[in-house]
Amino acid sequence: MAAKQNIEEGTNFTPKFDSNGLIRTIAQDAKTGQVLMAAFMNRQALDLTIQTGFATYFSTSRQKLWKKGEESGHTQKVEQILVDCDQDCLLLKVTVDAGQCHVGYQSCFYRALKKGSSKELEFIAEKVYNPEKTYKK
Amino acid sequence: MAAKQNIEEGTNFTPKFDSNGLIRTIAQDAKTGQVLMAAFMNRQALDLTIQTGFATYFSTSRQKLWKKGEESGHTQKVEQILVDCDQDCLLLKVTVDAGQCHVGYQSCFYRALKKGSSKELEFIAEKVYNPEKTYKK
Repeated sequence: MAAKQNIEEGTNFTPKFDSNGLIRTIAQDAKTGQVLMAAFMNRQALDLTIQTGFATYFSTSRQKLWKKGEESGHTQKVEQILVDCDQDCLLLKVTVDAGQCHVGYQSCFYRALKKGSSKELEFIAEKVYNPEKTYKK
Repeated sequence: MAAKQNIEEGTNFTPKFDSNGLIRTIAQDAKTGQVLMAAFMNRQALDLTIQTGFATYFSTSRQKLWKKGEESGHTQKVEQILVDCDQDCLLLKVTVDAGQCHVGYQSCFYRALKKGSSKELEFIAEKVYNPEKTYKK
């Protein structure tokens, strides 16, 4: 299939948005390699991210554009935008300050499944800021 | 909201599957930190992953369970399963051999948007194996 080969082996950036107009996006700390969060972008969020150099997502809970850090100040400066083989997922390499998760942790992935359990999580990180002080009520 | 707090600050593993019964899953090389791929799991794939210690996904293109590497041999030994704050995304830390992407690269993220462009990709990796030799026709 020529189309498939173009998508996988070509240099045209043709991000594939799903039926809701969204594409999965992962943010990774460009320096440490830590995966910080997973979110979605719509076309406009992607365009704004490319234009401004700062990550803008589409919040599925609030159903609106969301410039990361607009409220908390914890923005993401985009160093590189990678796309996967079938172009339905983006990976942003970002430069960040301390505290990327709204719960107070550096990464949203602050818990892991306990060894030998299928139901119990354990915390693998410490909070790096106090979200109650950061987010206005 | 107590429910929200339990999900975000608790130790009960309650992965949130979407309306299609799927949860986003990211695989990251446990040793190098490289993000290898993004995929989906359904409940059964997650259970099999936990039980066997090897990553099993749900292939949305083939609409079936897919043990990573069942055809290519490039399996993923799961070292740790992380979950994000709202428990709608998983992050697997995996031990892998060379070549995790079916196109021939170590990671599915082998291209990046060119600086200053919104349309043109550049390759940022070299192939590590020949997929034509690996996949049976």
